[in-house]
Amino acid sequence: MAGRQNIYDRPDFFDAYARMRRSVEGLAGAPEWPTLAALLPPLAGARVLDLGCGYGWFAAHAADAGAASVLALDVSERMLARAQSLNARAAVSYQRADLETATLPQQTFDLAFSGLALHYVADLPRLLNEVAHALTAGGILVASIEHPIYTSPRQPGWTEGAHGGKVWPVDGYFYEGRRETNWLAKGVIKHHRTIETLLNGLSEAGLGLERLVEYHPSPEQLAGGPELALELERPMFLMVRARRTPEEGRRA
Amino acid sequence: MAGRQNIYDRPDFFDAYARMRRSVEGLAGAPEWPTLAALLPPLAGARVLDLGCGYGWFAAHAADAGAASVLALDVSERMLARAQSLNARAAVSYQRADLETATLPQQTFDLAFSGLALHYVADLPRLLNEVAHALTAGGILVASIEHPIYTSPRQPGWTEGAHGGKVWPVDGYFYEGRRETNWLAKGVIKHHRTIETLLNGLSEAGLGLERLVEYHPSPEQLAGGPELALELERPMFLMVRARRTPEEGRRA
Repeated sequence: MAGRQNIYDRPDFFDAYARMRRSVEGLAGAPEWPTLAALLPPLAGARVLDLGCGYGWFAAHAADAGAASVLALDVSERMLARAQSLNARAAVSYQRADLETATLPQQTFDLAFSGLALHYVADLPRLLNEVAHALTAGGILVASIEHPIYTSPRQPGWTEGAHGGKVWPVDGYFYEGRRETNWLAKGVIKHHRTIETLLNGLSEAGLGLERLVEYHPSPEQLAGGPELALELERPMFLMVRARRTPEEGRRA
Repeated sequence: MAGRQNIYDRPDFFDAYARMRRSVEGLAGAPEWPTLAALLPPLAGARVLDLGCGYGWFAAHAADAGAASVLALDVSERMLARAQSLNARAAVSYQRADLETATLPQQTFDLAFSGLALHYVADLPRLLNEVAHALTAGGILVASIEHPIYTSPRQPGWTEGAHGGKVWPVDGYFYEGRRETNWLAKGVIKHHRTIETLLNGLSEAGLGLERLVEYHPSPEQLAGGPELALELERPMFLMVRARRTPEEGRRA
């Protein structure tokens, strides 16, 4: 299956992922969570879709915050099994789905959420179109994704700069598409897109950008963990909040 | 005057600028011009504001395309003198103004244009607020600016990557503010801002983003000048088109 992968079911990746702080501690272990949470609409009573739910930390959070329902999708059986054991809730339905091909129920959700999953999706326009149709009128998409500056390099990784400090070596920015990286495991495939492509993708799906955030650690986080200071040198995560625009305002 | 400069009136800078292809040939000598032009609304009949007009190439273009009037502002007397000699038009009024402090006539312009000037402005929120008020309802801002990836590095310039090719060494991304560079002349001050800050600045001024473009050479341009291929490795210019949102939809 060219261009497709289910890296999360590979034992080497799954085991490394399982040891990450965000896997063990959930949302509290993800430094970008407070920034992403600030983009969310009220969860109480909301019908929520979670695209790439992983261990189910967000799905459980939404349920605990009073969401009416959460449909939490992931391609990995192992992830879903872990989600069921860690984060089962009456309001949450964990289901297997491949974001490359999944069809979603129409006009069903008030919120579509995706935490660091969309850079694994090769056909993002297709998925965004599905998401737009799955949202109710005025429904909201909140998503975090690896930043294009982070995904761009052919050889990602800090290098020594001419002045002695660390620099992030950007190249390949306008060469969109597959990037094979060795994050957690060898040969993980991600998909690099420019900021222009990401924003156009939202617009063309009928999702109007309301807010764009480039995550960086807060002063409090920096005080608690100076190793985070390197994250001020280049953006790692891009976050967006977009609203489904009315049918009459949408492109064909 | 801390944070202020009029680099264009410094002889070393002015002389180097005068030799640039875009200075000699005008818009045809600026590879990004066709991309920027595609963002423009119809110019015929439009009342146009040009922020940082330089030699007046765009102002003259707008006049030749039928603009009703063009108010072309620049901080540099030398630039304005050159504009008058190269690009005088009946519809164009060249006036000296410092974009840091200029007040603009209210609800007067259908189009505000700025070509590669806004990264010299220290107080961009103030200027964007002026621009928003200077536009008529539904009026359009089209601007190009150096891309945050381009302005970010403490030591900008291509370096050798680990794989042998050229990389652009990004650091300092979240340290916004002054950057002293040696572009054309020593000690040129530019102002680095993140993409988030730029887009928020538009939004907070009541300018709704309609299109964001990251300029890169077209296949035709690459065929004509292979030295441009390096411009595919990292984004150099950001371009936006934004529309003045109605008063009722604007923030205070």
